[in-house]
Amino acid sequence: MEEFMFRENLSAMARERLGESEIAEMITLVLENGAISFGAGEPSHDLFPKEGIREAFVDAFDDPDIWGYYHDSYGDTGLRAWIAERMGLDSMAPAWVAPEHVLLTNGGGEAVSLVSEALIDAGSVVLVESPTYTETLLTFRKQGAVCALVPSDDDGLIPEEMERILARLRARFLYTIPNFQNPSGRTSPVERRKKILEIARRHDLAIVEDDPYHYLSYDGAAPESYLRLAGDDKRVIHCNSFSKTLAPGLRVGWAIVPPALASVFEPLRVSAGLGRPALVQKAVHAYLGGIDFSMRIAGLCSEYKRRRDVMLEMIARHLSPLGIRTNVPKGGFFIWAQVPADTREDFDSGAFAKHAVTAEKIGVIPGNAFYPEKTREGARAFRLSYAKIKTDDMEEGVARLARAWNAFA
Amino acid sequence: MEEFMFRENLSAMARERLGESEIAEMITLVLENGAISFGAGEPSHDLFPKEGIREAFVDAFDDPDIWGYYHDSYGDTGLRAWIAERMGLDSMAPAWVAPEHVLLTNGGGEAVSLVSEALIDAGSVVLVESPTYTETLLTFRKQGAVCALVPSDDDGLIPEEMERILARLRARFLYTIPNFQNPSGRTSPVERRKKILEIARRHDLAIVEDDPYHYLSYDGAAPESYLRLAGDDKRVIHCNSFSKTLAPGLRVGWAIVPPALASVFEPLRVSAGLGRPALVQKAVHAYLGGIDFSMRIAGLCSEYKRRRDVMLEMIARHLSPLGIRTNVPKGGFFIWAQVPADTREDFDSGAFAKHAVTAEKIGVIPGNAFYPEKTREGARAFRLSYAKIKTDDMEEGVARLARAWNAFA
Repeated sequence: MEEFMFRENLSAMARERLGESEIAEMITLVLENGAISFGAGEPSHDLFPKEGIREAFVDAFDDPDIWGYYHDSYGDTGLRAWIAERMGLDSMAPAWVAPEHVLLTNGGGEAVSLVSEALIDAGSVVLVESPTYTETLLTFRKQGAVCALVPSDDDGLIPEEMERILARLRARFLYTIPNFQNPSGRTSPVERRKKILEIARRHDLAIVEDDPYHYLSYDGAAPESYLRLAGDDKRVIHCNSFSKTLAPGLRVGWAIVPPALASVFEPLRVSAGLGRPALVQKAVHAYLGGIDFSMRIAGLCSEYKRRRDVMLEMIARHLSPLGIRTNVPKGGFFIWAQVPADTREDFDSGAFAKHAVTAEKIGVIPGNAFYPEKTREGARAFRLSYAKIKTDDMEEGVARLARAWNAFA
Repeated sequence: MEEFMFRENLSAMARERLGESEIAEMITLVLENGAISFGAGEPSHDLFPKEGIREAFVDAFDDPDIWGYYHDSYGDTGLRAWIAERMGLDSMAPAWVAPEHVLLTNGGGEAVSLVSEALIDAGSVVLVESPTYTETLLTFRKQGAVCALVPSDDDGLIPEEMERILARLRARFLYTIPNFQNPSGRTSPVERRKKILEIARRHDLAIVEDDPYHYLSYDGAAPESYLRLAGDDKRVIHCNSFSKTLAPGLRVGWAIVPPALASVFEPLRVSAGLGRPALVQKAVHAYLGGIDFSMRIAGLCSEYKRRRDVMLEMIARHLSPLGIRTNVPKGGFFIWAQVPADTREDFDSGAFAKHAVTAEKIGVIPGNAFYPEKTREGARAFRLSYAKIKTDDMEEGVARLARAWNAFA
């Protein structure tokens, strides 16, 4: 019997808008080559609060509500109240944000996915930072968005560049990772955020703020969020996650849903398999209720800052002399490396990354993984993550990268 | 400051295709009125294997893979292997189904949601049973599907009626709940399934088989699945769930993804928040590894069959004399009640259900909750669930329903 190939049965989404992940490909190469990796954009396993979470599950099992269909498809009311309160205390949320606006999701990625369904039609223009997070680009492309790149510098989005784009294009929303951005490590200062908000108001632009690195700010709190700065304007949908502060395997994230969108997100959640597991949400809530969250954050920041500092030192020793330019992230996991201006015109960091992982056994993610399509900018940059790597391995890793550069460029 | 209302920023999905759930509204009325409920389509809390699952979580915590981003976005490989093997043993899967084809989801509803993304464009025709499951209708509508109702009788889909529709319409797929259907309780005999498959082959029609009640077959195994009957044809996407056999709060379901769609479902899963929590999947796997699943199923069937029998007895006593026609489900949770042919033409089971819950404190779900739009058929039917109700309450509940009928009809 001939196999049915679904040729005439696929959606435009399935036929035209999905594709392989360049990051997944690099991670596979890292594993195959037994390489040191500056590739993985994930938190460090030795920092997961394993014992605390395990004990919190014992408490969660005492709750009879974990077994049936949870009555509220937005998720566990206790965790939602914790999030609303904490975001208020930490200058992340304005006064109107209450537990009823907190929608629990399968990590921050699902929050972005729900937002995409609510705001994107095929052909809709969405503004994104240049560069931006790979999986979000896939999520937007899946819905048929045309992603317009807003030029960015070491301080993130450039407001004037955004205004210039909006003068000729109508866009549905701006997607921004304002703090310690993935992949660039960049943070937008509060003055720029205010300018961006003001431009958004003039152009009826919604803002989707994806802020999973918020709490990993090494020197004092991160700048005020777009959500908070917008206040009663309520044009910001804020997406966040416990993946970086607790552990990604829990798959607990959230969105702050503005009141005008409540009637949209409720059926979107129901139509994709009802709520997410209340047991896990209740365990996260029980864990958070039993610790000093600020202390936990301080511990994480201190360790990640130490790793960043060692990484920067190694970069100064091995890469800077080669003319490779890197920034100094004030938090998070990522450094953005750009090749010298006089590098040959046909240089491609994708080919470089493949050479580095196979010949020198060091993994980095090529810049174009973070652009909707191949760009010269992306071909001349790559992402370095220092979150997960032992500081002992950093010098060896950076030295390998320098050798790969010398052989390839 | 004026609140931003997202008026020009919403997708067609958000503007036109979402809506309130008639079931949610009835459940709220049941709670507000302290009513006995034949409404909730969920399994009985006293049958959840609470202790066993709780212990299985202890085992799952021993696995270091639960904390980070799980390497396989399809989910825990152990549980996927269990599912593939069990489906083979139980005549649900043909020989080609291997662990690599099993995609773990947030309940069966998310499996249907992923299928919708893969196969539906705005305006695509999808064939559904008449009536069919409410949340699936929302999921299909969300993607812009036009649902064409295939007339059904006590044996489910009528193949000749489906063929008649396909003679004038091109459809992407048939969605069917072949066993103990929600809401009708109907089961398609294997001869009809074979006819349906043969028609599907002639019309390049895919089949989406949603089979969460499969194991709740009271007298011997459920008929062979469409997935199995299709064999190497591989046109069937099978969706299933542990919600009815273990507990819905775990939110673990799955899809069997045909090889031709592997490259579609992988990015669909990644783009909606990566995998679902491996911890929960591993706990479910640990639980299943420690029990005799057939024994568990036998216990469930025996209890649900007992409840059905009491329910049918009460119906024979109180509703049949009124001319209300009900079927005899061979498994699952549901009975479909149809009003007498001579009931007044403007009878509406929606209004009847509201009267019943407020005046007599008995909840049922009106038929039109299970149709894409209001139909005469739906207005003259309602769903009765006996899964969750104590048999002691059944006589009182059915008697109340009879009183409500006498007052209303």
